[in-house]
Amino acid sequence: MAKAIFYHAGCPVCVSAEHDIVGLIGESKVEVVHLGEAKDRISEAEKAGIKSVPALVLENGNVLHINFGASIEEVKA
Amino acid sequence: MAKAIFYHAGCPVCVSAEHDIVGLIGESKVEVVHLGEAKDRISEAEKAGIKSVPALVLENGNVLHINFGASIEEVKA
Repeated sequence: MAKAIFYHAGCPVCVSAEHDIVGLIGESKVEVVHLGEAKDRISEAEKAGIKSVPALVLENGNVLHINFGASIEEVKA
Repeated sequence: MAKAIFYHAGCPVCVSAEHDIVGLIGESKVEVVHLGEAKDRISEAEKAGIKSVPALVLENGNVLHINFGASIEEVKA
């Protein structure tokens, strides 16, 4: 994995955090995945250890859950 | 405020998140405040909108609560 991945679900909390995170670490260093639109990537997010969105998975595999937009269970629905 | 401030309380979740955040945005761009040691800064953190630590306050005033180490009430104790 070459860079961090920011998973979100399009909620207001997610969009605000996305702007902040992309601004902090730079657009070229983070892939943004909208789990509401890319439901085939939900299992990948779960395997990475994501419990809620928005969340950032780092290159070292650490997961940073940022604020609270929605649980991963809500995203599946 | 010239840069972001990362507030934590020395707990394992905080220390892990601190390493990740400092690594992401660079040591020169973030001030790290240990609220367990700097209890005089708890009120400043509360005014910024911090509900739990670890948390990152950005230059624009946005608060990113990262994972969950302890509530701000627990830090006061």
